Amino acid sequence: MDSVKVGICGLGTVGSGTFAVLKRNAAEISARVGADIVVAQIGARRDNPKCDTGDVAINRDVFAIAENPEIDILVELIGGTTVAKELVLKAIANGKHVVTANKALIAEHGNEIFAAAAEQGVTVAFEAAVAGGIPIIKALREGLAGNKIQWLAGIINGTGNFILSEMREKGRDFADVLAEAQELGYAEADPTFDVEGIDAAHKLVILASLAFGIPLQFDKVFTEGISKIAQEDVTYAEELGYRIKHLGIARGTSEGIELRVHPTLIPEKRLIANVNGVMNAVLVQSDAVGPSLYYGAGAGSEPTASAVVADVIDVARSLSSSQSSRVPYLSFKTESLSAHPVLPIDAVETAYYLRMTAVDKPGVLSKVAQILSDGGISIEALIQKEAADNANLVPMIILTNRTIEAKLSAAVSQIEGLESIVGEVTRIRVESLAG
Amino acid sequence: MDSVKVGICGLGTVGSGTFAVLKRNAAEISARVGADIVVAQIGARRDNPKCDTGDVAINRDVFAIAENPEIDILVELIGGTTVAKELVLKAIANGKHVVTANKALIAEHGNEIFAAAAEQGVTVAFEAAVAGGIPIIKALREGLAGNKIQWLAGIINGTGNFILSEMREKGRDFADVLAEAQELGYAEADPTFDVEGIDAAHKLVILASLAFGIPLQFDKVFTEGISKIAQEDVTYAEELGYRIKHLGIARGTSEGIELRVHPTLIPEKRLIANVNGVMNAVLVQSDAVGPSLYYGAGAGSEPTASAVVADVIDVARSLSSSQSSRVPYLSFKTESLSAHPVLPIDAVETAYYLRMTAVDKPGVLSKVAQILSDGGISIEALIQKEAADNANLVPMIILTNRTIEAKLSAAVSQIEGLESIVGEVTRIRVESLAG
Ligand SMILES: NC(=O)c1ccc[n+]([C@@H]2O[C@H](COP(=O)([O-])OP(=O)(O)OC[C@H]3O[C@@H](n4cnc5c(N)ncnc54)[C@H](OP(=O)(O)O)[C@@H]3O)[C@@H](O)[C@H]2O)c1
Ligand SMILES: NC(=O)c1ccc[n+]([C@@H]2O[C@H](COP(=O)([O-])OP(=O)(O)OC[C@H]3O[C@@H](n4cnc5c(N)ncnc54)[C@H](OP(=O)(O)O)[C@@H]3O)[C@@H](O)[C@H]2O)c1
Repeated sequence: MDSVKVGICGLGTVGSGTFAVLKRNAAEISARVGADIVVAQIGARRDNPKCDTGDVAINRDVFAIAENPEIDILVELIGGTTVAKELVLKAIANGKHVVTANKALIAEHGNEIFAAAAEQGVTVAFEAAVAGGIPIIKALREGLAGNKIQWLAGIINGTGNFILSEMREKGRDFADVLAEAQELGYAEADPTFDVEGIDAAHKLVILASLAFGIPLQFDKVFTEGISKIAQEDVTYAEELGYRIKHLGIARGTSEGIELRVHPTLIPEKRLIANVNGVMNAVLVQSDAVGPSLYYGAGAGSEPTASAVVADVIDVARSLSSSQSSRVPYLSFKTESLSAHPVLPIDAVETAYYLRMTAVDKPGVLSKVAQILSDGGISIEALIQKEAADNANLVPMIILTNRTIEAKLSAAVSQIEGLESIVGEVTRIRVESLAG
Repeated sequence: MDSVKVGICGLGTVGSGTFAVLKRNAAEISARVGADIVVAQIGARRDNPKCDTGDVAINRDVFAIAENPEIDILVELIGGTTVAKELVLKAIANGKHVVTANKALIAEHGNEIFAAAAEQGVTVAFEAAVAGGIPIIKALREGLAGNKIQWLAGIINGTGNFILSEMREKGRDFADVLAEAQELGYAEADPTFDVEGIDAAHKLVILASLAFGIPLQFDKVFTEGISKIAQEDVTYAEELGYRIKHLGIARGTSEGIELRVHPTLIPEKRLIANVNGVMNAVLVQSDAVGPSLYYGAGAGSEPTASAVVADVIDVARSLSSSQSSRVPYLSFKTESLSAHPVLPIDAVETAYYLRMTAVDKPGVLSKVAQILSDGGISIEALIQKEAADNANLVPMIILTNRTIEAKLSAAVSQIEGLESIVGEVTRIRVESLAG
């Protein structure tokens, strides 16, 4: 198979992100799949001014995609549980594989949809339905498949986490932050889904089924929102060494499965207590691995599109590969491995921590600073300690800006050559990273 | 296919863990695969007193497994790059799928091994080779397959992270902590692999290939260990707002790929800077998702076994399923979904934060405490504030131990009935979680 044909239904936030990612990363994706993934048709009631679809055929009726015999994979990104359900069932009936980001649809009608898909021998993939770009469904379904899962707890609604983070960090009130979240476009116009935990409940139901092998049972989730959390609760929790997070929790017990969404105090030293802003994270406790955590953007155009595209690639790899090598060993097909060189360390750019021992007399710092500045390296921070009584040697610590290692090495040699610097300069690289 | 036959070679730390997990979770695993996974033979030079292998046939020659026509999947857990390489190539030549935890083997001979496997149409799976139980290979190869990966940075050697964590938390010296790590069995008898970064370099090479689509090039990694980190560097870093972590970093630039393992200062507010002890974490920056992080146990018998078993399940699912439903939708086969009930919230056990407003007079606390104690609920922590001048109402905050929600609700009703308590009691659930 030389190409896999995709039809995208819905060109809103996630639809346009999916189109953009498939287009921008087309070369990489082909090298990973061994076939081109082509958006052959789009179903959208109207154009999206933020999305240049080029010469891809657009049909105003999304059902046209489900009926197009050319399409291998229908991507459902219209949302809701009525038209979307009809559309997905129609696509399945027509033998198409389906990829969706629709948690409401899966949580409420998944059992029926999966049965229809099994009947037709097609796949329905829904990685984007939970925790956006975090591959948590794959982790539970495949990565942890050898484990008995004991419980999982997730920050699975970004808006709710943004509100609680702002309340804590800036001492703001619930209503005030909610208004800002709406302005920033994080919260829905009707924020009930976010704030009252319904969105999180949809996602939790899906995670719990994957973890515990039970059918999807949305009506059984206990759901409590964050609208009643007062500023003072956040403060008292902090005094007690806790943070308040809106969690979805699923826990297996011998009597049954706990399924609950509610604000929760968590010890502040836990990694998940430090997940702030709109970010999501899911913590899974399982018998062989112990705790493992998956963190990333839980919503937004391209993060969600990332999961949609991963599902499209999964299906495409099954369609285009022999089973034994469905996923290429090194992610990219062997014949597509690149000859891009590995850089020698001298060519690497990073920042540096430098520690040196200086003779305690005036002018040493200025000499060191001069050498760095001649090398185009600037000083971001400096610690210079007083000499201890009777000692005439002082430690001097410098944080530099980012520079090429070769330049730093040259400067360090010069510094080590100074009479007023004793011994070697200790260097440790500094990376600001993310997260 | 009713059963998939596995042969385990090597019955040490990971081999015995793999046997134990396959045995303990056999029912769950069958429900996830749709076929039984049977350990049909073990290759071990001697018995492992910690592992009761029951009536499974043991052969003293590991090569017997590669030659046993009954075996579908050979699991290589002997380690090293000589006998292990010969064993894996022999298994491939005999048409067997291979699962291995051997990072040295993959990093140094992967290109050759994958070519042999492609030739024979079999799979070689190696999730356990990097970051133990964290499904990071699956995340990079499948979950993030729609992304252009910009860089990744990982704490991928537990021993090194344990040493640096102890140095920071307890002000201990490198040599001192290393000695303890050796006693605890974290570090190898020859600790060079851990401490000088060779083990991390093996893993980084594998991650970089998956992320950037380059062949495995172990000889190109810049590797610097942690043996030169002084206690004072840890302290100065902290003064500057940083933590020192031993990271493997791979970064794509237009000139080439940076591949480097070295101690690194990271801003302390980053999630990855707060990964302590023997835990591992990999942070991936990619174009669609942005940052995402994968955290868990990077080594140890069962965490590593978890990844080995996940790979075995992956292969078994391909062997036993039709392609469209290789992985069951809800992780477990539909016919195996359980009727285990979802518990009502009243039956859930958790701890509670209670906030109430009390009239400021003696005896209120004792009445509240009595009600809780009668309900079998004990108080873990308490905040009682002074009344503001002129006010006769004071806030009172209580953290309880874990109890059943129904009991808590009954107690709360009684507390709300007290004359000296004004208004409703705010309750927020408390979970101590993990990680
Ligand atoms: N946004 C996120 O961050 C995020 C994250 C995870 C999952 N999701 C899920 O992804 C799905 C899409 O969300 P979104 O944020 O992209 O929504 P959106 O921005 O509102 O886009 C929805 C698109 O579907 C179209 N549409 C809606 N109903 C339709 C119908 N009956 N017939 C034809 N087209 C219709 C809309 O067209 P009009 O413009 O003409 O109304 C719009 O183009 C939802 O299931 C959502 O839960 C979203
Ligand atoms: N331990 C971890 O936490 C961990 C984590 C990730 C990956 N790994 C990888 O997993 C692999 C196994 O590690 P491990 O910790 O389980 O090692 P281990 O405890 O030393 O066990 C190795 C086993 O293989 C056997 N063996 C070694 N050479 C053999 C040979 N030539 N012929 C037959 N049997 C042989 C040993 O038998 P004897 O007892 O007779 O010597 C022993 O049973 C290694 O590749 C390691 O890098 C380990």
